[in-house]
Amino acid sequence: MKPRVSPRPAHTTPAPRPARLSADPGACVLAAASTLLRGISQVMLQDNRLAGLLFLAGIFYNSLLFGGAVLLGTAASTLTALWLGAERVKIRAGLFGFNGALVAIALLYFLEPSPLTWGYVMLAAAGTTVLMAALMNLFAAWRLPALTAPFVFTALLFVLACARFGQLHSTGSLPTAGLPKATAVEGIVTFSTVVEGLFNGLAQVFFQGNVVTGVLFAIGLLVASRLAFVAALAGSLGGLLVAWGMGAAEPAIRAGAFGFNPALTAIALYGVFFAANATAAGYALLGAVVTAVVFAGASAALEPIGMPALTLPFVLVTWCFVAAGPLFPRLRAP
Amino acid sequence: MKPRVSPRPAHTTPAPRPARLSADPGACVLAAASTLLRGISQVMLQDNRLAGLLFLAGIFYNSLLFGGAVLLGTAASTLTALWLGAERVKIRAGLFGFNGALVAIALLYFLEPSPLTWGYVMLAAAGTTVLMAALMNLFAAWRLPALTAPFVFTALLFVLACARFGQLHSTGSLPTAGLPKATAVEGIVTFSTVVEGLFNGLAQVFFQGNVVTGVLFAIGLLVASRLAFVAALAGSLGGLLVAWGMGAAEPAIRAGAFGFNPALTAIALYGVFFAANATAAGYALLGAVVTAVVFAGASAALEPIGMPALTLPFVLVTWCFVAAGPLFPRLRAP
Amino acid sequence: MKPRVSPRPAHTTPAPRPARLSADPGACVLAAASTLLRGISQVMLQDNRLAGLLFLAGIFYNSLLFGGAVLLGTAASTLTALWLGAERVKIRAGLFGFNGALVAIALLYFLEPSPLTWGYVMLAAAGTTVLMAALMNLFAAWRLPALTAPFVFTALLFVLACARFGQLHSTGSLPTAGLPKATAVEGIVTFSTVVEGLFNGLAQVFFQGNVVTGVLFAIGLLVASRLAFVAALAGSLGGLLVAWGMGAAEPAIRAGAFGFNPALTAIALYGVFFAANATAAGYALLGAVVTAVVFAGASAALEPIGMPALTLPFVLVTWCFVAAGPLFPRLRAP
Repeated sequence: MKPRVSPRPAHTTPAPRPARLSADPGACVLAAASTLLRGISQVMLQDNRLAGLLFLAGIFYNSLLFGGAVLLGTAASTLTALWLGAERVKIRAGLFGFNGALVAIALLYFLEPSPLTWGYVMLAAAGTTVLMAALMNLFAAWRLPALTAPFVFTALLFVLACARFGQLHSTGSLPTAGLPKATAVEGIVTFSTVVEGLFNGLAQVFFQGNVVTGVLFAIGLLVASRLAFVAALAGSLGGLLVAWGMGAAEPAIRAGAFGFNPALTAIALYGVFFAANATAAGYALLGAVVTAVVFAGASAALEPIGMPALTLPFVLVTWCFVAAGPLFPRLRAP
Repeated sequence: MKPRVSPRPAHTTPAPRPARLSADPGACVLAAASTLLRGISQVMLQDNRLAGLLFLAGIFYNSLLFGGAVLLGTAASTLTALWLGAERVKIRAGLFGFNGALVAIALLYFLEPSPLTWGYVMLAAAGTTVLMAALMNLFAAWRLPALTAPFVFTALLFVLACARFGQLHSTGSLPTAGLPKATAVEGIVTFSTVVEGLFNGLAQVFFQGNVVTGVLFAIGLLVASRLAFVAALAGSLGGLLVAWGMGAAEPAIRAGAFGFNPALTAIALYGVFFAANATAAGYALLGAVVTAVVFAGASAALEPIGMPALTLPFVLVTWCFVAAGPLFPRLRAP
Repeated sequence: MKPRVSPRPAHTTPAPRPARLSADPGACVLAAASTLLRGISQVMLQDNRLAGLLFLAGIFYNSLLFGGAVLLGTAASTLTALWLGAERVKIRAGLFGFNGALVAIALLYFLEPSPLTWGYVMLAAAGTTVLMAALMNLFAAWRLPALTAPFVFTALLFVLACARFGQLHSTGSLPTAGLPKATAVEGIVTFSTVVEGLFNGLAQVFFQGNVVTGVLFAIGLLVASRLAFVAALAGSLGGLLVAWGMGAAEPAIRAGAFGFNPALTAIALYGVFFAANATAAGYALLGAVVTAVVFAGASAALEPIGMPALTLPFVLVTWCFVAAGPLFPRLRAP
């Protein structure tokens, strides 16, 4: 398990051996498959082929379309990095794949599939690779990770652009553009809300609203890292409980809307970017709770342009909590 | 008087001696009170206990609720910094207190008080401490100060989040969400508009619309630094005159809406981050005038999400004018 | 031809000799004219007096008002830099002029001219100088250029501010504030759409909708650099074709709305910030295509505040593509 931009030495598993270049076509296919699966696993901040395979299985279980989108997006963004001559070690670790995976699934979630849409997806995936490299360069001095920021900004701009492009059609999954206004408590949270919300919170990292998919994602995390597994479930549950306590709408809680960002924040802060001690546990909990609030705030802020918050709350809060680390000596490098 | 992030040596008073840790409970209470008051004084870029006490008196004079909020917010953000092991010298200078003070007063200005609201305030204050540390780390290479940015971003997101949280209720003090449109000149500016606007402009730094509070703040500034006193009044007056000349609404001018951001910019640019020479006076005047325009622009930009500009104009303009300093040799370090 | 912030040695022409200070008033006038013209040429990333003269001629051909605005804005921002003691070499290269030129033309495009408006224009032009210096300082470590960002942010805030200022009146050229919504294909693209759109795409860099102006701009680019000429035309055409293929509205395509940002991106990426090899050609093409999409997305995002995207898409995409450069070894310094 390695952080996306390896700021510190990996803390549990040895670094995978770099696959040697080979004329053997079988070896090439295996190397390509390994790169794709590691890219998919990086969406949850892991570098583990088997985890990537389980994430992919979870997506295909829910939808063939999204499974195909993930493969295409990961391939397109990785090939762009190859074309431009990016460092092989980073490419093989999947660092140029995970934002392509997410942007592809997002565009097909919000836009009707058509040949033009598939081309648009590949263009967006190529764009995430350039943005990823830019953030790696800009953030190097602070050892800050790019996280899923390339996906978030590319997806927002490419979906927004459809308001000017008559040949692209929305699926109707976008929030309706409107002015934010106060809400009342809506629906009653039951035990099934909590259980479904907990696993949907994991599944929503890849835009999937499916409890079985969420369980497969949890198994994938467990395979890659016990810490990540515990943090993800605690983060998803924490976000859900904050939303419940604050009076968020029950259907949104059940769908996992308040869980996927805090789950990612908790994985990042507990074990990936900080060593898993008691202070880090409290810090990750604070981060997860703040992420749930920032999700609500960012969703309201994006309402006039009719856009969802995606994983922007995770990105903003994790950047902030990781950047603050050097001033807080009770937090240690992993 | 020291800038918030001490980029250059303090220029008038010697550095305060660090309070020694002591088993004496009386000394502990005094040290805590000193840290709180210095935190409150940092809102106006001062590091002076007596100024902090006068600011606190001004707030309590206007409202017990806001006085209590300031104390709670300053304490919560300072304790978060202590828990995470931040540097004692920075904590004692109040650098982890002033954003907590402002976010607490802002949340209680916009949200109905309730036990949940008070918990929400403490969470937000803890969040400002992490964001403060993050900005200190990110800005260190440029010697840029964080200013009140942690307050602004935390307050905007935490207030916006209420649009999703049915258990939090707005006080009705928020601007109505709408689309910006052209305005006509409204009301007639008289002598009383100017006098009230001048002091309300200082009082609005802490969300107070009260001339006596503004006078107490001015006295607090005078106690800490004559330069800051002159700059604050000139900045508040400058912002007011720009707004009047441009045809802003009289009630907004009288309430000090156009004064508090330019007042802070003027304090920052004249004496705190640049030595107070003739070029700096012109530079601070330019900065104050631009801040008044940016306040109008930022207020319009935030209209669709129904949010106020807070001290964002001061933060943006001061970052820009301080960052430009090294390229302008006529401006000197203080 | 030099990039705005000279990150690498100029690649074709020798650096111009710095004009010597002289008591001869004729020489002073010539030096001032040279600085103004070089400032105007920097809008298209060139450092060439004759190109600046041709750009100015193109603007005056279309409108005396805008020609006068360009001269005033360039002068006001350059004089601000002189007052603050900025480096003479940078001032003479026009680096403190081009954002003033653009902000002046933008404000007079969107606001009715009046004595107050002209004063407002000079204030905004002075503001761009400070923002330019700030970005030069902040970006120095990454060798990133400021591009037209000072113009974009200053113009947006100064135009938005009019919603609070009753003495400034809009010309009606601003987009109507509204919520973004899906569009249908509108109008039929013909050969004349393509030809007019191609040259209007260049003319729109200076807010001019005039084919002859666009042709004069193209000649100016050819005078300064054959690479820039080819890149600009290819970028304008590329943006136009993307917009056509995606189903953008025909009148917007004909007006050059989708061309000016990609034209600037292509100039920047092909020859100015990267050596003009085959990879850079593909990279610049990718950048131009992405810029056209980002233009559509940014336009939709700014709809609720009723603001145009200006050259923000060019700035964002070029920052990203230049910042990513060091990680892509197939791209070389010019």
